[in-house]
Amino acid sequence: MKINNKINKRINCLRSYLKKQRLDGYIQPRTDSFLGEYVPENDERLQWISGFSGSAGAILILMNKIILFTDGRYNIQANNETKGTNIEVVITSKTSIQNWLKNNIKNKIKISIDPWLYSYSNLKNYIHFGLNNNIEFIILKKNPIDLFWKRNRNKPNNAINRHTLKYSGVTTQKKLSDLCQKMIKNKVDAYVISQTDSLAWLLNIRGADLKHTPIILARAIIFKNKKIFLFINKNRLKLSIVQYLKNQTNDFKIFQENKLLNKIREISKSNKKIWIDPISTPFAIAQTITNKKSNMYNNNCPIEIEKSIKNSTEIKGSKIAHEKDGIALCNFLYWLQSTKNNKLNEILAANKIDNLRKKQKNFLCTSFETISGFASNGAIVHYRVSEKTNKNFTKNNIYLCDSGGQYLEGTTDVTRTIIIGKPSKLMKKEFTIVLKSHIALASAKFPQGTAGNDLDIIARSPLWKNYMNYEHGTGHGVGSCLNVHEGPHRISKGSLIPLQPGMITSNEPGFYKKNKYGIRIENLMIVLKDKNYKNNNLLYFKTLTLAPIDRKLIDYALLNKEEKEWINNYNLNVYKNISNKVNLKVKNWLKIICKPHK
Amino acid sequence: MKINNKINKRINCLRSYLKKQRLDGYIQPRTDSFLGEYVPENDERLQWISGFSGSAGAILILMNKIILFTDGRYNIQANNETKGTNIEVVITSKTSIQNWLKNNIKNKIKISIDPWLYSYSNLKNYIHFGLNNNIEFIILKKNPIDLFWKRNRNKPNNAINRHTLKYSGVTTQKKLSDLCQKMIKNKVDAYVISQTDSLAWLLNIRGADLKHTPIILARAIIFKNKKIFLFINKNRLKLSIVQYLKNQTNDFKIFQENKLLNKIREISKSNKKIWIDPISTPFAIAQTITNKKSNMYNNNCPIEIEKSIKNSTEIKGSKIAHEKDGIALCNFLYWLQSTKNNKLNEILAANKIDNLRKKQKNFLCTSFETISGFASNGAIVHYRVSEKTNKNFTKNNIYLCDSGGQYLEGTTDVTRTIIIGKPSKLMKKEFTIVLKSHIALASAKFPQGTAGNDLDIIARSPLWKNYMNYEHGTGHGVGSCLNVHEGPHRISKGSLIPLQPGMITSNEPGFYKKNKYGIRIENLMIVLKDKNYKNNNLLYFKTLTLAPIDRKLIDYALLNKEEKEWINNYNLNVYKNISNKVNLKVKNWLKIICKPHK
Repeated sequence: MKINNKINKRINCLRSYLKKQRLDGYIQPRTDSFLGEYVPENDERLQWISGFSGSAGAILILMNKIILFTDGRYNIQANNETKGTNIEVVITSKTSIQNWLKNNIKNKIKISIDPWLYSYSNLKNYIHFGLNNNIEFIILKKNPIDLFWKRNRNKPNNAINRHTLKYSGVTTQKKLSDLCQKMIKNKVDAYVISQTDSLAWLLNIRGADLKHTPIILARAIIFKNKKIFLFINKNRLKLSIVQYLKNQTNDFKIFQENKLLNKIREISKSNKKIWIDPISTPFAIAQTITNKKSNMYNNNCPIEIEKSIKNSTEIKGSKIAHEKDGIALCNFLYWLQSTKNNKLNEILAANKIDNLRKKQKNFLCTSFETISGFASNGAIVHYRVSEKTNKNFTKNNIYLCDSGGQYLEGTTDVTRTIIIGKPSKLMKKEFTIVLKSHIALASAKFPQGTAGNDLDIIARSPLWKNYMNYEHGTGHGVGSCLNVHEGPHRISKGSLIPLQPGMITSNEPGFYKKNKYGIRIENLMIVLKDKNYKNNNLLYFKTLTLAPIDRKLIDYALLNKEEKEWINNYNLNVYKNISNKVNLKVKNWLKIICKPHK
Repeated sequence: MKINNKINKRINCLRSYLKKQRLDGYIQPRTDSFLGEYVPENDERLQWISGFSGSAGAILILMNKIILFTDGRYNIQANNETKGTNIEVVITSKTSIQNWLKNNIKNKIKISIDPWLYSYSNLKNYIHFGLNNNIEFIILKKNPIDLFWKRNRNKPNNAINRHTLKYSGVTTQKKLSDLCQKMIKNKVDAYVISQTDSLAWLLNIRGADLKHTPIILARAIIFKNKKIFLFINKNRLKLSIVQYLKNQTNDFKIFQENKLLNKIREISKSNKKIWIDPISTPFAIAQTITNKKSNMYNNNCPIEIEKSIKNSTEIKGSKIAHEKDGIALCNFLYWLQSTKNNKLNEILAANKIDNLRKKQKNFLCTSFETISGFASNGAIVHYRVSEKTNKNFTKNNIYLCDSGGQYLEGTTDVTRTIIIGKPSKLMKKEFTIVLKSHIALASAKFPQGTAGNDLDIIARSPLWKNYMNYEHGTGHGVGSCLNVHEGPHRISKGSLIPLQPGMITSNEPGFYKKNKYGIRIENLMIVLKDKNYKNNNLLYFKTLTLAPIDRKLIDYALLNKEEKEWINNYNLNVYKNISNKVNLKVKNWLKIICKPHK
């Protein structure tokens, strides 16, 4: 096996440093100090030190052992990417970091940790665990990888734009007023915004600091009297934005990012109470509050629920975004069906759908890296195509494409499963069962108060009956020109947040046959009130996504009357909304594939 | 309005007593010191002091106000039964006792309470509430109602019988050994059994201390070395039972009931740790433990889960019990259909089904008071017929009958909804939607770990889609020749206990039209492992109840293929199992009504 000198050298550097500091180890998680799903390239420290490029994991570097912890979906990839090193891969569903430490550490040791890379609740939990298990967690002042990794450490410098009322629907003034009322009600003086989506939503601004998400990597402190301290590189803010924000509040101040901790210290020293969300606030920020008992108020972000309930402008916007997305998707599906199989491959297809979206007005970026998986690659739930894995299409197998866009009007996310050539009887059966699951959820009615935990079983039930299942959630919340995965609600076991009118969620049951193919049918849906809501308290889903579901994969004999009606109406509705916005060839094709089955 | 002198006098007596004791009030709940669902007549203190005979509630007697708290289903009844008194009725779903006190008590007051009538966790909660709300809860030594209510206070004296291995399946020795292992694992020295069903199950004995439940009103202390202290009137135990129990353990002692607290005090004084279930143990028992921090272990009853998982003898027994029940039910339904409407009334019907059950071998008693509700009475969920409310049957309306039996082999509970005459189109639609709900749950498959909270929505979903619902749980656990309502599992929002193979639960969705009629379809089901459980971890329900579901109320056009198959198979299975055990007339009738619909 080829030795990976690059990675080994980096680990050796780090180890010498730890030794000098009399530390026995260091843990580097994948996340950066914003604790989000996506990390800017120059903060991909886990990848730099280990070679592992997956989206979740952490490395524990001890003097005699190196363990990379990640979840089951990255098992193969993690082992491949760490070849030629001494890194062992451990799957967290089998052994968590804490369990590993419990079982493997005999003598008292000191493990160092960067407090910016852990939420307050998470690191508190680590420290508590350490106290009971002979492990001292040492809170570092500086990230040790940054001592060796020479790279451009400049903070993002992309343009920041106003997200005008045309798209945001509600002024910052109004949002601020609601937030401050919550603060007053909970007897706190200031709230530290650590969630970048909450910040962008509150200030009605959007940026391009991440590849797939139009947020800005910055933080703010909001005071109960509507004063705003924004911590950001001043030069990024155009005069028009500063003017807008000054118009929204009496007191708007900008500080350099490195002033944040000083300000928090000052506020808490003046005996004011500071609200932090323990799940999204880095430990480094929370620990700065002096006298935590009297000056810290721990509770969920007071913005996230309001942000998740889309206002009428955002709802209208989402419909517009889905229409544009539908045009791109219909053109894509037409292209896919009309191109000879042997001319197709995964990269080509991914580029095609990405480029078709780019042509749409107000398109900002894809909302995540397009998943374009043919045959066995489609069975890898978090597959990302590369030159190495790129599969040429062949006849009679299944292609899975999961993609989405960020438009000024809203965020989209859709998965279509397409047969290339002819499906087997089994493929049709499996696809149809997944479709039954999708329809069961899409057509559910449920009373106010119902949470994603309750609804999850509605989608799984038809699969379980057929001895099928999927190892991921059924649906995730979606932001409005923000994160494609944005809660706090989701449709998944354990999610206790009640769904509310105006929330958008995905509906994406699937079925994955290892080494064969993957099936997933994903639409976005919005929660709406039943027409007679005042009396019956019932909510329902309205599907937003507009792209035909492949009839060739449906075994209609397995559908009951209501299910047939649903799929006929769905495809017909796609035709009605999209057919006049595509060229004649596509329109004619669309007419055929959207025709109701009798 | 006629003044109710009897009740008013009783309340006055109690008030003078409270005054003398310098107390400002007293709360009397409906329950007795065994905290169960059923209360022996001579412990119906709430009824004695208030006149209210419902199965849930509590009265708060203050010097200037008397409030009867009960839930919505008893609203009308409670108001009727307290006429001619100064008792105000308050519905707990709108205002709980604690909320009422919070809103109505301004100055510091002392409210007395009988610590035998509240669970440890419940009364602790009250005391804590009082501390924050200016209310001192005074723990009484003696129940004040017992000072005035002259009645036979003798403890139950009914025969106690062995529940032999033929019916129980597992020896006390084995059950005891499992229990003691749990105690050792949790580092406790003794467990106080307060749940009468747990006691009967562990000792393999049954009694007749309650009208509908073959338990014995007694308690025991079990020590980790398998020593048993049973607190009961010695004379009730036949020699054969004593001999059996002495054979099961090295050390079996009987004490008078009033020795229990002394023994608990002794044990805790010797610095032993005592396990109590805070939900089912009266506060009076728990408070006896000295030095609670070190000597008390609070956790769920260590018997209840094992008791709920029926062993193979109990499962076989349940099938036999359901066959007998099926014979009684088929005879009943035949009688109902072949008797002229104008000859029928609710009492007659209830007596008929009760008598048909009595004829079955090993029948002990009905498992609850038969609910026999014609037309609008069927819409009252907890209806009990009386001479006053008894309705004569008329044409073209619905009759609802919910009944069950206690057999040595097992406990049954079944509801059938029957059309008398011809149904309207709407009745058929409503009945069929309830049937769809019933079938959805009955035919569900679900992975190990799924709780009743998760499954509840499967039954409600078809109803919600049609703007229907029911204001009760979907299913309750059922004991084996024990309580008809016996958890810890149930199928209901909020129930987090995972269903396990061997558990029995009811499946009883319904729909109630106030002042018109009620619909409910209830079968018992047992949880079983899928044939391929080792690989797929899936469980399913097998229905136990054997009584035809009324085809005249089914609109087959509303059923899909699987649902039609289910109902055809269900009725056919009833015919197969019952037809050779009833007379020819009934058999011929059964053949027609169980014939599959095409």
